Amino acid sequence: MTFPDIDTPAVLVDLDIAEANIDRFQAHCDEYGLKLRPHIKTHKLPRLAQRQIQAGAIGITCQKVSEAEAMISEGGIEDVLITFNIFGADKLSRLKKLAQKVRLSVVADNVATIDGLAGTFCDADVPLTILVECDTGGARCGVTTSEAAAELAAYIDGQSGLMFGGLMTYPPTGQEPAVQDWLTKAKKMIETSGVSVPIISNGGSPGMWQAQDVPVATEYRIGTYVYNDRSLQDRGVCTWDDCALSVLVTVISVPSAGRAVVDAGTKVLTSDLLGLDGHGHVLGRPDIKVAGLSEEHGVLTADDINLNVGDRLRIIPNHVCVVSNMLDEVQLIRGGTALGASPVVARGKVW
Amino acid sequence: MTFPDIDTPAVLVDLDIAEANIDRFQAHCDEYGLKLRPHIKTHKLPRLAQRQIQAGAIGITCQKVSEAEAMISEGGIEDVLITFNIFGADKLSRLKKLAQKVRLSVVADNVATIDGLAGTFCDADVPLTILVECDTGGARCGVTTSEAAAELAAYIDGQSGLMFGGLMTYPPTGQEPAVQDWLTKAKKMIETSGVSVPIISNGGSPGMWQAQDVPVATEYRIGTYVYNDRSLQDRGVCTWDDCALSVLVTVISVPSAGRAVVDAGTKVLTSDLLGLDGHGHVLGRPDIKVAGLSEEHGVLTADDINLNVGDRLRIIPNHVCVVSNMLDEVQLIRGGTALGASPVVARGKVW
Repeated sequence: MTFPDIDTPAVLVDLDIAEANIDRFQAHCDEYGLKLRPHIKTHKLPRLAQRQIQAGAIGITCQKVSEAEAMISEGGIEDVLITFNIFGADKLSRLKKLAQKVRLSVVADNVATIDGLAGTFCDADVPLTILVECDTGGARCGVTTSEAAAELAAYIDGQSGLMFGGLMTYPPTGQEPAVQDWLTKAKKMIETSGVSVPIISNGGSPGMWQAQDVPVATEYRIGTYVYNDRSLQDRGVCTWDDCALSVLVTVISVPSAGRAVVDAGTKVLTSDLLGLDGHGHVLGRPDIKVAGLSEEHGVLTADDINLNVGDRLRIIPNHVCVVSNMLDEVQLIRGGTALGASPVVARGKVW
Repeated sequence: MTFPDIDTPAVLVDLDIAEANIDRFQAHCDEYGLKLRPHIKTHKLPRLAQRQIQAGAIGITCQKVSEAEAMISEGGIEDVLITFNIFGADKLSRLKKLAQKVRLSVVADNVATIDGLAGTFCDADVPLTILVECDTGGARCGVTTSEAAAELAAYIDGQSGLMFGGLMTYPPTGQEPAVQDWLTKAKKMIETSGVSVPIISNGGSPGMWQAQDVPVATEYRIGTYVYNDRSLQDRGVCTWDDCALSVLVTVISVPSAGRAVVDAGTKVLTSDLLGLDGHGHVLGRPDIKVAGLSEEHGVLTADDINLNVGDRLRIIPNHVCVVSNMLDEVQLIRGGTALGASPVVARGKVW
């Protein structure tokens, strides 16, 4: 299906596949008694956040205050975790407004961030829940030792207006036993000091089918699973049939027998490689390599490219979350029929 | 200058530097008698397109019809070359409307594209000018032989509503003699058949200071030069002081003595490497490596990172054109003072 009435390049979202993905992983979490808190960064669409909640998710995850604002105002979402150190007067002021509307929690991995939150929420009617972010091997944010986690837990526990909620990690892939050990040790250390640890939030699509292998975790955060992509197919996490988002392109040049050029480059597919060779998978043409991208051109190569100018193709991107962020709208598909464009409400929300 | 009143992450555009860049390369083209046709893909701002015209540019270059629409309607630009094979009913219809407003030219490298243009413009009052795109080594679009260029020139010349305007190439970098030979041979072959070749359009920022080394070219297209970036600094094309665009970020975590995390990732800086190691240059801190990006996090490493949560930094991105495309607005700076936000009018215009 290449939807001749849709101008290209276009980002297509197959709602049937997305909803099946939502339901399949919700069932997996239900089976293991794990709460699910999907990350909206992948779809950025209120309607899919609502669908995730309807399927059984306890709330959503956002990375930025502006994403939470969009999901609350346009999606009516009532429980949001923001997994980012929030710093600065403007963001804190906006965060406080959101906390008056919904059940809100955030993370922190340092005293300066906690001090900013404490200064903002010291007079709040309802305390703000803070999870301590833990670096269990991902080497991004997070305290690097369980001792540091326990220190921050005690520090949060001592602030009026704040409530220590537990631990959060964005784990390294495929190291579930180490993550389990790390979080268990930190939990025990905090509990020994008399502070309870009600929430332990783990997450990430690459390890989704092993979510239960970190049983100390109470909830799982996950984004990419709603659409899936070439990186997850490559890891064996999904099949091509589970990929809900594709980029519809038109062949605009066939300079040689082994090369064609399509009308989408990094401004749609992005340069994200995620360790893969090439920039996407052409549905139905596994012999084609998406060999190179410039901003508006995608160069396809094959031994025999066998394409004509005007042909339409669909490409599964390497990394679907960043593709969602490139265009102001996606084209929704259901039952093989195009339903029209839908604005990507949380696109470009980096504040 | 880290502009405490601007919320981060933010894309800063220093107008003093951008205008100096515009004037410097215009003077270079004037010295060599080369017409300049800047590509708006880098800034996507009508005000800078206007400034380029005021400095002496003969018109602008766009990659897509929607970019041209934005620059014509919001910038009042009167001469536009679209360097893309335009295909499909919707785009052709919009192109025809633009041709009724301004002096418009496009490129083509194949018969199917020319047939689409001919079908659209056969009854036009003013014929549409078409340049034949030539692959002089860049291996993207373009006819691959001078014979093929001559064939397409004759084909265009035979269509009512179309006018053959000459040749266009996006050349390989550092191969000026080969590009000169390619274009000269094609020009002679076309002229031998009795068709004149008034325009030969060459371009690209990496080879900007060698633009005169392809003397058969009549005009030069260039985008990145207006802002410059780490890739051009690395090639010796500019200095850090010539970089007009920077990304203002805040340190949000300092997990260890050798690592800090800032609040901008691929959603601002993008994954474009352009062959470089790392994802940007931190102004004033050449010892820091922008070692890794995820969507909202930038991981900085150094032997001694010596940063605190809340510190502000400015990062020169690897590739400035794609950064311009990420946020809906940029923050304009002049004389060291922030002037406020300006919408990136042609952002996300991929159609």
